[in-house]
Amino acid sequence: MKFDFEKSLQIVERTPGALFNLLDGIDEEWTYKNEGPGTWSPFDVLGHLIVCEKTNFISRIELILSGTGNKVFSPIDMQAQFRESEGKSMQMLLNEFAALRKSNITKLRSLHLTEEDFNRQGISAKVGSATLSEVLATWVVHDLSHLSQITRVMGKQYTREVGPFIQFIRMLK
Amino acid sequence: MKFDFEKSLQIVERTPGALFNLLDGIDEEWTYKNEGPGTWSPFDVLGHLIVCEKTNFISRIELILSGTGNKVFSPIDMQAQFRESEGKSMQMLLNEFAALRKSNITKLRSLHLTEEDFNRQGISAKVGSATLSEVLATWVVHDLSHLSQITRVMGKQYTREVGPFIQFIRMLK
Repeated sequence: MKFDFEKSLQIVERTPGALFNLLDGIDEEWTYKNEGPGTWSPFDVLGHLIVCEKTNFISRIELILSGTGNKVFSPIDMQAQFRESEGKSMQMLLNEFAALRKSNITKLRSLHLTEEDFNRQGISAKVGSATLSEVLATWVVHDLSHLSQITRVMGKQYTREVGPFIQFIRMLK
Repeated sequence: MKFDFEKSLQIVERTPGALFNLLDGIDEEWTYKNEGPGTWSPFDVLGHLIVCEKTNFISRIELILSGTGNKVFSPIDMQAQFRESEGKSMQMLLNEFAALRKSNITKLRSLHLTEEDFNRQGISAKVGSATLSEVLATWVVHDLSHLSQITRVMGKQYTREVGPFIQFIRMLK
């Protein structure tokens, strides 16, 4: 599948609703447990998605389009959610993410990006140069990847409870 | 996490909404492509979820609770969705799944299951005996596993489009 701006927006604009549907109002046993030491719970993942709305994809796109000569992306703080989510409820995080995402999509549409813009480049200190369309495609896949992770982490909480059926569920192995 | 009836329902009652949110109205490039030969697209997965609503979890629970001496579960037809989804749109499948799920949850609640019921057993020809609570827990994990699969399959359609960022996305490797 080739990169397409509107098809990309179809995914990122649906993510807040999908997260509300999955996570709003469910027991904390589903949302505060992870896959083991050093892994993230659905609550941690949501905090990370908020950090990325504030500091990652849109900021990188704005940097690529800006007049500045320094096109090196800021690294993502992979621990920031542990500080920033402290004391917040899941519902607060869901609302915060939805508001940030809405505002970022409005910002993105207001840029009226052209084919030439999609090919402009920035620089990741870790992986080298990347185009604006690669940043946008990564935004899409990042959402889907974390949705996949959240549902996997939730499912794993019932690993023992499925009894002998474990052998049919690849995700639990 | 220990099996809990109400916490299990929190998940299975949210699945239709989550699927609508993810899949309704998006381009067929996201929903008709799979991960390679022999794998399922999101459209195929939805067909399989419908087959399971009709023939799997609730039927097995009814068999366990029934007066019959034969407690052997019918196997699931893992190809049925290819026949039964033919000619249908994604929206038709989403509506069909939501209606079946709603009816199955109503049926399940009307059984007023007791602790004793949760421990009653049926027999899987492939994995041996299983309790009613194990069938219910598997219903929950089956939903989450297929949600995880759908979002993974969608994300993989952009594998080449993310460029150098592929190395940060475990799901794509």
